[in-house]
Parts: sequence; structure tokens; C-alpha cells
Amino acid sequence: MSTGFFEGIEKVVYEGPDSTNPMAYRHYNPDEIVMGKRMEEHLRFAVAWWHTFAWEGQDPFGGQTFVRPWHPQDDMERAKLKADVAFELFDILGVPYFCWHDADIRPEQGSFAENLRTLNEITDYIGEKMEAGGPDLLWGTANMFSHRRWMGGASTNPDPDVFAFAAATVKSCMDATHKLGGQNYVLWGGREGYETLLNTDLGAELDHMGRFLNMVVDYKHKIGFKGTILVEPKPQEPSKHQYDFDAATCIGFLRKYGLENEVKLNLEQGHAILAGHSFEHEIAVAAAEGMLGSIDMNRNDYQSGWDTDQFPNNTPEVALAYYHILKSGGFASGGTNFDAKVRRQSIDPADLVAAHVGGMDICARGFKAAAAMLEDGGLETALKERYAGWESAEAQAMLGSDLGSIAQRVLDDNVNPEPRSGRQEILENYVNRFV
Amino acid sequence: MSTGFFEGIEKVVYEGPDSTNPMAYRHYNPDEIVMGKRMEEHLRFAVAWWHTFAWEGQDPFGGQTFVRPWHPQDDMERAKLKADVAFELFDILGVPYFCWHDADIRPEQGSFAENLRTLNEITDYIGEKMEAGGPDLLWGTANMFSHRRWMGGASTNPDPDVFAFAAATVKSCMDATHKLGGQNYVLWGGREGYETLLNTDLGAELDHMGRFLNMVVDYKHKIGFKGTILVEPKPQEPSKHQYDFDAATCIGFLRKYGLENEVKLNLEQGHAILAGHSFEHEIAVAAAEGMLGSIDMNRNDYQSGWDTDQFPNNTPEVALAYYHILKSGGFASGGTNFDAKVRRQSIDPADLVAAHVGGMDICARGFKAAAAMLEDGGLETALKERYAGWESAEAQAMLGSDLGSIAQRVLDDNVNPEPRSGRQEILENYVNRFV
Amino acid sequence: MSTGFFEGIEKVVYEGPDSTNPMAYRHYNPDEIVMGKRMEEHLRFAVAWWHTFAWEGQDPFGGQTFVRPWHPQDDMERAKLKADVAFELFDILGVPYFCWHDADIRPEQGSFAENLRTLNEITDYIGEKMEAGGPDLLWGTANMFSHRRWMGGASTNPDPDVFAFAAATVKSCMDATHKLGGQNYVLWGGREGYETLLNTDLGAELDHMGRFLNMVVDYKHKIGFKGTILVEPKPQEPSKHQYDFDAATCIGFLRKYGLENEVKLNLEQGHAILAGHSFEHEIAVAAAEGMLGSIDMNRNDYQSGWDTDQFPNNTPEVALAYYHILKSGGFASGGTNFDAKVRRQSIDPADLVAAHVGGMDICARGFKAAAAMLEDGGLETALKERYAGWESAEAQAMLGSDLGSIAQRVLDDNVNPEPRSGRQEILENYVNRFV
Amino acid sequence: MSTGFFEGIEKVVYEGPDSTNPMAYRHYNPDEIVMGKRMEEHLRFAVAWWHTFAWEGQDPFGGQTFVRPWHPQDDMERAKLKADVAFELFDILGVPYFCWHDADIRPEQGSFAENLRTLNEITDYIGEKMEAGGPDLLWGTANMFSHRRWMGGASTNPDPDVFAFAAATVKSCMDATHKLGGQNYVLWGGREGYETLLNTDLGAELDHMGRFLNMVVDYKHKIGFKGTILVEPKPQEPSKHQYDFDAATCIGFLRKYGLENEVKLNLEQGHAILAGHSFEHEIAVAAAEGMLGSIDMNRNDYQSGWDTDQFPNNTPEVALAYYHILKSGGFASGGTNFDAKVRRQSIDPADLVAAHVGGMDICARGFKAAAAMLEDGGLETALKERYAGWESAEAQAMLGSDLGSIAQRVLDDNVNPEPRSGRQEILENYVNRFV
Repeated sequence: MSTGFFEGIEKVVYEGPDSTNPMAYRHYNPDEIVMGKRMEEHLRFAVAWWHTFAWEGQDPFGGQTFVRPWHPQDDMERAKLKADVAFELFDILGVPYFCWHDADIRPEQGSFAENLRTLNEITDYIGEKMEAGGPDLLWGTANMFSHRRWMGGASTNPDPDVFAFAAATVKSCMDATHKLGGQNYVLWGGREGYETLLNTDLGAELDHMGRFLNMVVDYKHKIGFKGTILVEPKPQEPSKHQYDFDAATCIGFLRKYGLENEVKLNLEQGHAILAGHSFEHEIAVAAAEGMLGSIDMNRNDYQSGWDTDQFPNNTPEVALAYYHILKSGGFASGGTNFDAKVRRQSIDPADLVAAHVGGMDICARGFKAAAAMLEDGGLETALKERYAGWESAEAQAMLGSDLGSIAQRVLDDNVNPEPRSGRQEILENYVNRFV
Repeated sequence: MSTGFFEGIEKVVYEGPDSTNPMAYRHYNPDEIVMGKRMEEHLRFAVAWWHTFAWEGQDPFGGQTFVRPWHPQDDMERAKLKADVAFELFDILGVPYFCWHDADIRPEQGSFAENLRTLNEITDYIGEKMEAGGPDLLWGTANMFSHRRWMGGASTNPDPDVFAFAAATVKSCMDATHKLGGQNYVLWGGREGYETLLNTDLGAELDHMGRFLNMVVDYKHKIGFKGTILVEPKPQEPSKHQYDFDAATCIGFLRKYGLENEVKLNLEQGHAILAGHSFEHEIAVAAAEGMLGSIDMNRNDYQSGWDTDQFPNNTPEVALAYYHILKSGGFASGGTNFDAKVRRQSIDPADLVAAHVGGMDICARGFKAAAAMLEDGGLETALKERYAGWESAEAQAMLGSDLGSIAQRVLDDNVNPEPRSGRQEILENYVNRFV
Repeated sequence: MSTGFFEGIEKVVYEGPDSTNPMAYRHYNPDEIVMGKRMEEHLRFAVAWWHTFAWEGQDPFGGQTFVRPWHPQDDMERAKLKADVAFELFDILGVPYFCWHDADIRPEQGSFAENLRTLNEITDYIGEKMEAGGPDLLWGTANMFSHRRWMGGASTNPDPDVFAFAAATVKSCMDATHKLGGQNYVLWGGREGYETLLNTDLGAELDHMGRFLNMVVDYKHKIGFKGTILVEPKPQEPSKHQYDFDAATCIGFLRKYGLENEVKLNLEQGHAILAGHSFEHEIAVAAAEGMLGSIDMNRNDYQSGWDTDQFPNNTPEVALAYYHILKSGGFASGGTNFDAKVRRQSIDPADLVAAHVGGMDICARGFKAAAAMLEDGGLETALKERYAGWESAEAQAMLGSDLGSIAQRVLDDNVNPEPRSGRQEILENYVNRFV
Repeated sequence: MSTGFFEGIEKVVYEGPDSTNPMAYRHYNPDEIVMGKRMEEHLRFAVAWWHTFAWEGQDPFGGQTFVRPWHPQDDMERAKLKADVAFELFDILGVPYFCWHDADIRPEQGSFAENLRTLNEITDYIGEKMEAGGPDLLWGTANMFSHRRWMGGASTNPDPDVFAFAAATVKSCMDATHKLGGQNYVLWGGREGYETLLNTDLGAELDHMGRFLNMVVDYKHKIGFKGTILVEPKPQEPSKHQYDFDAATCIGFLRKYGLENEVKLNLEQGHAILAGHSFEHEIAVAAAEGMLGSIDMNRNDYQSGWDTDQFPNNTPEVALAYYHILKSGGFASGGTNFDAKVRRQSIDPADLVAAHVGGMDICARGFKAAAAMLEDGGLETALKERYAGWESAEAQAMLGSDLGSIAQRVLDDNVNPEPRSGRQEILENYVNRFV
């Protein structure tokens, strides 16, 4: 029985690039075979519970703008209504996955025991809907940043009781994720960082965070959870500084605490931008280390200094992201989660649907361009040519050599390299043939 | 015999805080004992050859503004005149150290052999001046970013011949640094990065850079150089992305390539700002890993998105930097190098002197404030109180425990932590008592 | 009868620079005469109702952290308790002024008539407290950005009914400000701008805003309000773009709509930073046009891209702001309003007091440094020397001349100007003698 | 007779979207009729002499990378060779326009008389080439920022002799532009601003700049130049602050000095980005005031804080720019000038050609998308609907009313507006149907 929330909105179908129907897919055709696999299996789209169902439209200068039948979000009855509406949207969109924080799906009751009880109840409820034909769980996670208990951090809190509460909370969310067959478990440390160095023991906090993540990995093995543990970089916001600053910082952290073979990264376009990187940079860094896990797809406003989490709408940018994902082998347990929210003025249910339709279509279009580029091979050929010198035996021998020997050869042979064009514009033009 | 360049400018002396003499130190008193050591030995000031003597005042929209007797900088005669003037400034300021790139001190002649010959000749010349009572060498380094041969990188160049040229160049600069008794050897990878990912094999380039740095460390040991090898983080500029992005990224890189016990960091305020960090953050990160080596002291314009390399002039900022340096034990082989340049409109010799006087004074003032705070102990006491909970046996046992046990305890004891004030404003007010 | 909220906290008094009492003024001595006037009359400090009493500690990723006896802020009883506490803080600090938005002081009831009724009631209540010896009102303003009715703008809303609601709201707030003897009335257009140009008629919105502001000025004259009308620039946040981007943009807007003699600017450090300016730049721009009205004193985190509204703590920066204020004649109807909020982890009443004490002290210290610089006259003398050439009759005649005549003179006299040093470092060193 | 510089590169022709020829136009078809006019006449492409022929590849950390037959650029022989090569590129590309600074086309000789003589000689030489069938001059301008005489500003210099030199220089460049039939004359004030407020009389400098621009306008009328005078906003770089910060600031300046009907704006994407704006924002602001003159098309790297001046390569962004240009009536005297430079590693002649081919193609593609959107009318219809309320007589009457009357109506009618969706995502999806 429908909740009626999306009344008048039909299931979205693929109508092809010439369609002018704003509620149709023009590029996302789940069954289309690209590079030997269905698009749905490549892209692995997920809807995020928090932005799409839990966020009420607040910003730092304004209150709630969305008025939903499940507001206020403080009892189980309305939590279930919210879940009903969520699965209606999943069905309208035809997405194969969804994601949640504990705090998105159950009301906050103020104590761990109460939160555990409601989490179990709502995940049972969600599990029934999944069995009835709903999508699968891409990942679950614990919200350890919104309630005031987390204001000074979770695993990095100066108060060991908060560390304990965090440990219990993550355990409960891992259990729930495991129960629902989740493919990954994510940790985002929005309060794992500091507001001011003046009151912060940075070294101790990093050690606590490293120990905590080791416990998470141990627990995963203990319960037989086969999904991937992912950490999500973000440089700041809400904290002045977050320890998981960017991909390179996270990778250094994982290596320091012996976790480089156990944990991968969940990368977000908006977080990359805030850290001063392009999205494809973060993906390439993670891929180079074999630590690319999953992506949070959104876009940031380049003129704003905070995380705007808008739905993606720029095909050329999206294409480069998927190019690096495909080049590294595509998603394994990961997928494309829309960590994106409609603008707070987009208050109609139709806005929620249209935003996802547009986002999925841009991703599909960018993905197909990326696949075409990879199949065409132009970029890979250019790369091979540019680095061809390194394939010689002499070059490889030099890498095994030492400064003194090399310097002698430079003197003896009067080595005086002539620069060669980087051909950036030619390569950019090449990309524009596909996007 | 004086070159006459600084004609009319006397040796700068300490006159105390009430002096209105613009060419006197008001705070820097080299012989004053602070925390048991002379200020000069704490601060270890160095003048940088590049900005102060080699830079001609160009910016991206304008050419040379400085007209110096050693211009154009293309022959050895004028290189020696430049060195003469340099030692006159060292003497006027009374600094104990200086720093150089090869390209600052000798003309670029276009081939390695020629550059090697002139490097040896000029470093002999400089060595004689040092023996005649001049200051010591804080560090030497190779400029592997200005000449067009380096446009696509040095150790990360797609052309192995450039790698070879870089190896030979670094060897020659390490030899010269060793010869002059340098206390450190620095590597800054301004072109070790990329302009566009489209033409870049990021993983291969990082491996080459890791191998190169290992060769540098091996060579240090081979020649018995006792100084410290330092790498200097900077996120971008001139490249779109530089691999040595920030302290955390460098530390991760060093650990990956097995160099965490061999190499430390040379941190710069301006580079910290460009990476989205405060200077004290970068220092604290390096200190937490025991990898704090030396600092490049300058300041960036907070409203500009490039490296402005201005002389420091904000005491409260400088004080926080030295606080973290002192807290971690102060400088060992490192020091305070002014990687700062006078504005291109500051064309008079007096500007060169005054800029250093002001910079040294701000550092001295900030340093004394930092020492006073450390001796007062207010911040350390506050820190100890904030983290006191972690000193209990129970908290320590929890760190050795696991998620399941902790969760059980949270349930059993109904652990429900109450947040405590972070007291940021009170701590900031405290700091303002000292700066 | 005390509310007990600040129990144990005494009235803050001046104890001089050597005091180590964290709850004493070390620099702010209200009765000290500086440049012929009491400091209190120069600085004209105001406490802001919104950050200090109304804000509950939320940020984009977290909810309420402050638990105050006047929460939730939805009835008149608690609005009055909040006012009681406010006046207790004013008394503890000894500030001469305060500021409010309507929404800070009365609960939002959802209709204009209700809001008007409660606004009148609470301003009567506040008026009684003022008569009983409380401080004066520096300015009042209308919050036309928090309630969802304003989500698409106030005077620039596509819906004329919102324009009407805004007009009625501003009228009510001007009436209340007038009733309480306010010295200024402020308009900040946080939603006067756009989220996306795609749905925005920029020209029409600017015209509506210009018309609205003319109505405000007319109404001021009609009711005989003698205070100053101020607009407050901010480039963005909450909107993607706000029409009152910065001082120069506002001045252009005022001139276009014929308001340059009627309206002045209320400038905020944090907003200056977001617009890519230093605070002193914004002050100098307004002062050059005779439009400097008042300031919102705070500071932004230079590493964050949003408005952090922290209490000021950097004396050198504050000194430059006051230097330009004093140089332009000091405040007339304006003052120093702390548009600053304690960090959300600073949850104790003592944090509220200490933050203001520290902020007032930094302002007093910076102000005294500014006054000393102005009295010393070093900067003004340097300025006069630098521009001395323009005082000649020939230079003035040239300004009244034309390109052709000037070009002829350049040819005839072979005019070939030699650049002169800008002496930036020397001037910066000079400033550091005072701060 | 060919210089041979572009040996082996054929004239670029239109081959349609399916072409894989990197040296063909896939979208730019000059003769194609769009909205009733040939594309060539709509887009009015211009090649910029400075980046394409005069820039030698330097950046702040590196020297010349391009080795051209016309280097060093210090005599008239090579200046003519450079012009020969320029016209060869114009011919290869088939562009209808070009642009120059005086310093791009003639060597700097150090005195005004010498520079005037060589300017006249080289513009005669260029004029002959134009008559022989070359493209037309879109605009000329004076470089008053590169030589050291301009280091402290041109019309805003503290030295009146520099003002005089600037006046003579602009006169000479206006004469040359007039002689060559230029369609506009541009002023960009890269040094009209300050490095530090400490040494700057902001009010006096603005007055001098206003007076200077009035002289320029007077001279235009005196010589009968029918082109448009354009000023070009840029917020900073090379100066810390430039007075022509952005479109809104320039418009305010023009209005203050009585020039709003005489001068229009030349807008650049990169400068918009540096000022915190999107390119379409700047265009919409200028268009709303009827002051849109011409554009400098390029793109900035969103992760870099300086002006990267790259060739445009993002169709969706370019489309929005042309949408606002077309909506305001398209170019009159203005055009699309590529103020873009190949990367300094793009050292081959083929890179120069390919960069322009790619840039022109992206512009053509974006332009056609913009035209299609405008013809489809979807955005304009949505806009009309959103603001429909303002078309009522009642709403218009309200604009002519006053706060008191409006407030009374709000009370009487209990006006309580309900927010309506801004539909941002739906509009973004609409745009993506066209780009």
C-alpha cells in the first residue's frame, strides 16, 4: 500500500537521449551492456538515506524548509513511514542499492540501549522490505557527529567513555549491516579532528583512532562480515581539521597502523574539492595503492568553501572520475552512492525524484564516455609513448643503481636531455571527443 | 674590501623594545638566555640566497624591478660579487647561517659538466669566506625546477635521462653541502607532480621518486654526511599538484618507501597555508611523528592563492609555531630559514636589510612568548586535565580490548557520557597574555 | 533578582596588563582617555543577542550542544528569561550597547500579527530593563533569512507576498528600534541573492531590493528616526551569491538607487575575508566614500571557507582595522558589535563571559595601538612623502588636461620616470613597534 | 612566403562531430546559420598576441621553455617575424579577429619616443598584412604592468610622471587601434591597485583612475574612434588588490565617475573565478546594466588560486556563458578573445594550433547548445512562471507604495506566504538536455 508521498509520479524508465520527458532516463539504461557487463552492475547506484529522507532543509542561517509526513523524526512510527517512502523512491528510480547511518533510520533516544533497540527494530523492518524485492544495502555506517555527545570527537574524544560509546555504536551498526547483507561498512570521522590545536593532543588522538580502526577490522573478521571496511576522507567541516584529510593522508594513516591491506577508501567529489584536489586525483591516488573502495557521487559549488553536496551535473567531470575507476578495474564491493541533497528550496517530492534521475543520467553518460575512451585507448597509448624511455634495460638498471654511478654516466656521456611537449591541450581535445 | 652595495648601513645591534631605530633589533638579542640556551642557538636564523640575492623582482605579469650590480647573473665574476654582497649582509645582520640552491650561487651554463665546474669553484669561494669568519651553512639544495630541462619533473620525469641529470645534480649539491659543513640537505619537488593527470602515470612517478630518495639517503651514508636529509612539502605551484602535498602526505610517502627513520621535514608557513593548514598544524603533525626537521619562515597573504613568501610580521602566529617547536624539543640540525622575499617594489638595499631585521625581530618576539608559555605551563596543564580520563587503568585496558567487550560494558553500565567544555576561548585568551 | 545563570561570576573589572586573572580586563579600561575621549565612547562595544543567547550550538553536521534554561525558545516566558540573562551578562561585562534581530528576542509564531504582538511585548520588557540602568541599543534588525518563508529571498523574493511580509517586518523592527532609542538600523540580506542563476531574474531582483531600501529610508524620515540606516555586505553564505557582495558592490548599488547619502555600511571582518578582502580594506573603501557606519567585530578561520564568526584574538589585525576607523574620524552612530559566537564545544556560562572579555581586550589593545600610531604619525608622513609629487601645480594641471597634451609633454621632455621603493617591509616593521 | 614555423600543418577545416582528426573543427562551422546569423559573426573569435606569440613559457619558478625563432624579443626584425607567424596562424585557424598589447608587438626600448616609433612601424606592418586579407583587429590595449616603471601603478601611481607616461602610452595605443580599424579599446589595470594599504592613498588613487578614464573617453571622441572603450575586471594578481575587482565594482566605479554610458566591460572567465564568481554571473551582472562588451574566453583551474588562463574545455560551462550573452542580444562590437595560453610544457607549434582548435570547438559547441536552449525557451518560461506574481497590478502598486501601507495590508489580509519550490535540479536537468 502506497504512502501517497510520490503520488502522480511513475516509475522512471529509459527513453533514450532524445526524450524530453524530465522524468525519464536519457542515458541510464540498466540492461545495456558496456565493456561486457550491464550498466547497472557497473555503476551500482545507491540512494543515501540521510540527505534524501532525514535532512530537513536546515542550513547555518535557516531552519527546516521540508515539511514531510515523517516529521518530527522522533518516534518509531514515523521512522517506519520514512522507510516506506524510501522504498517507494527506490522502486520509482529502480536503484539497486541504498545506504544509511543509524541516526537516519531510527530516532535518537539518548541512551545506547534505547538506540540499539530501535536500530534492531528498524533494520528488521527494512530487512523485510528488502526481502520483498527491495534493493540491497551498499553500506551502513554510524552517525558519530550529530549528537552533542560526539562534539569533541568519537574515537578521538578526550573522554574514554565517548570512545566506549563509539565502540558500542559501531559494533551495533556493523551487526546491522551484516544482518542486512551490506557490501561495505563505512567510517567517516567528521568530529575526529580538532577545533583548536590549543586543546588537542594530536598524537594521542591519532593513536586512539588507529587502535579503534584495528578493533573494527578485528570485529569484522570475528563476525564473518565479508564486506569491505571503508574510511572516507574529508579535510574539514564540521571540524577545523579532520585527521582523514584526503586520500593520501588516509593511506599514510592506514599504513602506520598496519591496516593497508584491510581498509579501503570511500571517496567523495565534494570532499576532494575541499581538500584542494580534483575528484579524479583522489581516485587515481587510491587506485595507485589498490585502495579504491567506493565513491560518494555529488558535486561541490566551486565558488563556495563548504560542502554543498549537490547532485552531479557536469558530464566531463564525471567522465574523468569513471575513467580512473574503470582503468583500475571498476567497482568490486563499492558503488556510486549519491551523497547529494536537493537544494533546500527544492521542497516538492518531484524534486527528490528529478534530482536522482538527473544525477543517475549524468553518471551514466559520463560512464559511457569513460568506457568509450578506455576502449579507444587513446589516452593509454599516449601514456605509454610518454614513458617509453623507462622500458629500456638501461633505465631499469639505473633505478637499481646509485647517485655516484649515475653522475659518472651523465659526465661521461654528456647527458643533456631535451624537453618534450606534454601535449596537454591535445589530450584535452581528445577527451572532448567522448564527453 | 666592501662592495659598497650596503653603503651607509651599519651593523644591526640589539637596542631593546623601546628603540625607534628601524635598523635595530628590538627583540632579537642573540646572547640572551632563554630556557637555558642563547637565543641565537635556539632560533638558528638563516638568510636564503635565492630570494635575497638571486630573485630579480619578476612576477607573472612583470619583469625585473631590482637592478643590482651582479646582473645579469650569467657569469662567474658577477656570481662572486653576489657572494661578496651576501656575506656583507650576513655580517650586517649577524646571522649564524645561510642556505642556497646551486642555481642561486653559480650561473646556469647548460650542461652538467659546466655546472659542476662552476658549482665547485663558487663553493670553494664561499668556503673561504666562511673560514674568514662568515656564518655556517644551514642547508644546501639543488634547483631542479627553473631550467626548462626540468619542466616535466626531475626524478619523476617521463624521460629517464632527466632522472639521471637529477641524480648527478643532487650528488653534486650534496658533495658541495658536505664540503661546506652543511647541517642539512633539502629536497623540494616543485616539478615532482603533474600539470594534468591525462598525461601522468602517478603510480610510476611516485615509485621513481621513492627510489630516488633512497639513493639520496644511501649516498649520504656513503660520503659520511652527518646532516639531516629533509623534504619540503608544498601542495601545488608551480605544478597543479605536487606529490609532497603536506606534512601528512610526505610522512605517508616516507613510510611507504622505508625512509621514515632517515628523512625529516622542512616546513614552510606559506606552503602550509596553500595546503589548507595553519603553520602550527604542520609542525605538530611532523612533531607527533618525530619528523620535524627545520622551518622556512615566511608568511602568505591570506587573500592570495599563491605563495607570496613575505617576511613574517604577525607575532601571535609566529609564537604558536615556535611553541610547537619548543614543545617538541627545539631545533636539532634545523633552524629558521627566511624563505621570504621583499616585495618587488622594495628595490632599495635598505629594504633588504630592514625586511630581515623585522622578520628576525618578529621571530624573536614570538619565540620568547612561546618560551614563556611553555615555562608557565598553562596550556600543558589544560591538556593534561582534558585527557585525564585516559590515564585510568580502565581506559588503558579498553584500548587493549575489543568492540564486543566494550559494547557489553556500555550496556551493563549504561555509559552515557556528558560533554565537557572545550574551553577554546579561555585558552586563546591565555595565549594572548603572552603574545 | 538574579537568574543564577552566571552564578559565581563577578563583574569584570580592569586590572591592567600584568593581571593573570582570566576574568579581568587587561587592556579595556573604559574611563581611560585616548585621543581626548574615554575608551568606552571610542569603542562602543555591543553584545549580539543572536550568537550569545539565541544560537543553540548547531552546525551543518550537528545539533544543539548548549542546554540553556530558556530552551526551547518557543514561548514568551522563556524569551523573558533569556532577556533577564542577557542583561545580567551586559552588567557583568559593563558593555554600553547591545543588538538584536526580532527573531532573537521573541519566539517565531508563524504569522505576522503574532510576531508583531510578541515583538512589542518583549521590546517593552527590554525597554524597562534599559530604563533600569541597562545599556543602550546600538542597532536592531529583522531576521529575514531563518524562517522557511524567506528561503527564496525577502525583498528579492519571486513572490510579491514575501516582499510585503518583509516590508511589514522591517517596519515593525524599525518601530521597535526607534522605541528603544536605537542608534542605527541594520539590513543584512542573507537570502537577497540566489542559489542558481537558472531560476533568477537578477535585474528585477536588484530593482526590487533598491525600491525596498528606498522605502526603508522614507519610513525612517517619516517616523523621525535619527539613527543611521546600515547595510551589511557579505558575498555568500547562506546563498550562493548575495547581492551585497562587499563594500564596493554595496556602494555601487546605493549610488545606482540614489541612496548614497542616506545609507552607510556595517562591515564585518568575517564577511570581508569571505569576499577575498582584508577587514581594513573594506573599512578603507567605505571610509573613502564617507560610508563607514559600524563594524561587526569577529574573526574568520583563514583555513575555512565559511563564516566562522569567532571572537577576535589577533591584535595586529584588529589594530589595522581601528587605525582606518580612527583615521576616518572614529565611530559616529556606529560601534563595535561582537558578531561572534563561542565555539559549540564551549558550553559553560563561563565560556560566554570569557569570550567577550578576551574579545573586548583584544579590541582595546588594538585600538590603543592604532591611536598611538595615528598620534605618532609615521604612516601618514610616509604617505604624504610618497604622493608628494601630486601636490605640484603641474601635476594638478595635468589632471585637468587631456591625453594629447600630456603625450606631447612626455615627448618634449622625454619623461622617463624612475621607480621608487614602496618600502612595504619598513612600514610593516613600523606598525610592529605599536602592536 | 611562409616562415615555415607551422610546417606540415594544414588550414583547419570543419569536418563535423564524427571526425577523429585532431586538427579539424568538429563543431565550429563558420558559415552555419544559428539564430539567423553565421556562427563566425556570432562568436567573433580572436587570437591574443600575448599568450600565443609573446609569452615564453615562464612561471614563478621557472624560465623560458618555448624556443621560438623570434626570441629574444628585443628587435624589430624579430618583431616582424613574430607578426608573420601570427598571420600564418590566423590563416590556419580561419579566425576573423586578433588582439594585442603594444608590448606584444614591438620591443620595449626604454623610452616613450622609441616605443612610439616602433609601435607605429609595427602597426603599419600589421596593417599591410590586414589589407592583404588578414583578419581584423578586435581590440588593442597598452601593457602598463610589465615594465618596472609601472610597478607602483599606471594612472594610480604615486608619481605623476608615471601618470603622464601612461597617458602618452594609451594615446599611442588608441591611435594605433584606430588606425587599424579596431572595434574596441581595452584597459586592464593589473597594477591599478595596491600591494599594501600601508603605503596607499586609496581615495586619491581612485580619483586619478577616474580622471584618467574620462580622458580616454574624451580622446576617443576627439579622434572619432567609433569602437567601444572596455575595462576588464580582475580582483588581484599581480597586485594584492586591484580596483577593478569584478563587474559590480567596475560598474559602481563607472557610475561614480560619470562613465556608465561610455564604457563597457570585457569579462574573463578566469578573473570571474578569482573574484569568487561564476563566469555567467559576471556576464549576467554586466548584461543587467547594459554594460556587457566583450569576453576573454579561457578557463581557470578550480584547484589553483592564480590565473591559469587555460584554453576552455568544459562545454556545460561555456554554454551557460553564451546563454547569457545571447539572451542579452549577443555581441555588438565585442567578441570571443582567447586570453588563454598553452601550458608551458606544450612547446611544439602543433600545440599552439591544437589548443585554439579545441577552444574554438568547445565555444562553438557551447554556443550552439545555448542557442538551442534559448530557442526552446524552457528556462525563460520557467523564469516567467516563477516571477508571475509581480505582473499583477497589485504587486506593481506595492512597489510604488510605502512600508506603512504594506504592513497594514499584511495585517488586514493576514498575508502569510507559503514557499514554493525553486526547482533547481529540474532546471539543471533541463540544461543537460542541450549540453
